[in-house]
Amino acid sequence: MSFTEHCLENIVLYESHFIQLHKDRVSLPDGSTSSREYIRHPGAVAVLAMLDNGNLLMERQYRYAAGREFMEIPAGKIDAGEPLLQTAQRELLEETGYVADEWTFLTTAWACIGYSDEQISYFLAKGLRHEGSKLDEGEFLEVFELSLPDALDWIRQGKINDSKSIVGLFWLNDYLQQQK
Amino acid sequence: MSFTEHCLENIVLYESHFIQLHKDRVSLPDGSTSSREYIRHPGAVAVLAMLDNGNLLMERQYRYAAGREFMEIPAGKIDAGEPLLQTAQRELLEETGYVADEWTFLTTAWACIGYSDEQISYFLAKGLRHEGSKLDEGEFLEVFELSLPDALDWIRQGKINDSKSIVGLFWLNDYLQQQK
Repeated sequence: MSFTEHCLENIVLYESHFIQLHKDRVSLPDGSTSSREYIRHPGAVAVLAMLDNGNLLMERQYRYAAGREFMEIPAGKIDAGEPLLQTAQRELLEETGYVADEWTFLTTAWACIGYSDEQISYFLAKGLRHEGSKLDEGEFLEVFELSLPDALDWIRQGKINDSKSIVGLFWLNDYLQQQK
Repeated sequence: MSFTEHCLENIVLYESHFIQLHKDRVSLPDGSTSSREYIRHPGAVAVLAMLDNGNLLMERQYRYAAGREFMEIPAGKIDAGEPLLQTAQRELLEETGYVADEWTFLTTAWACIGYSDEQISYFLAKGLRHEGSKLDEGEFLEVFELSLPDALDWIRQGKINDSKSIVGLFWLNDYLQQQK
């Protein structure tokens, strides 16, 4: 049985360079109608950046929506028309100052299916060299190194509690175990 | 160094029973000002519901924001003032028809820190008995069983690609391995 909901009418409630809020009138599988509010998002990438010593590049960053700082993996939004790998390379350089010789696509996951169409694509970056970061205006963060076992412990302790970072770090751990 | 951003002015751009969109004028760590758009969300719970045979209860559900169906763990939004465990018990019963004797809190993770304050709390439910579901109006889904090893394979294959479900299933797997 298909549970597909069909759009009857689309209304853009709000639109900026950052966020688009939509409210659609939809028909449901039983023929009734309802409304669905959701965010349109350009999508993002996240990077598991593994140094030659095995440590991962992490960031401490304040997130206004949550009103606190988080320990995160490097990540950022896709610019219009930008290929995913290019976004990953650009964001890693901007935020951490590193370039990488070896890029591996890991997976794409939907961030928040209840009210957003955002997809996050995860890459593993290896062969890292420091070149010097260039943060966007109004972007402030601190880069630090963390081993994968420590990162998993931080997840267990709730010290890393950003879903994007949990998905990326658990995925990397599983990926490396599968390679063995 | 603190990267805290302070609110100078809060504007509610849109508000419904489902979603609140805010735009704040904020001061940044370097003293400059900027704006931050974000969603206020009541928070949610997700349930790793493990049957006596070891299988997990999963759901196939259409998500309008993403325009497709997903394979997900049971989850739902917190009603105003509702304790987390009560939300978990209510959502599990409503969506799957099961009640559970044994509840274990696993973790709380932030769903989407770039533009939402939504936190999702994860519970493990065991000692399950079927009582009969009662879906909310306008809610359509199919419940099925899946083993944890199969669920992990589905994550690797991208067949489970909803971040909330990936976080929950990886977390459960890690939790069970730590218990050994």
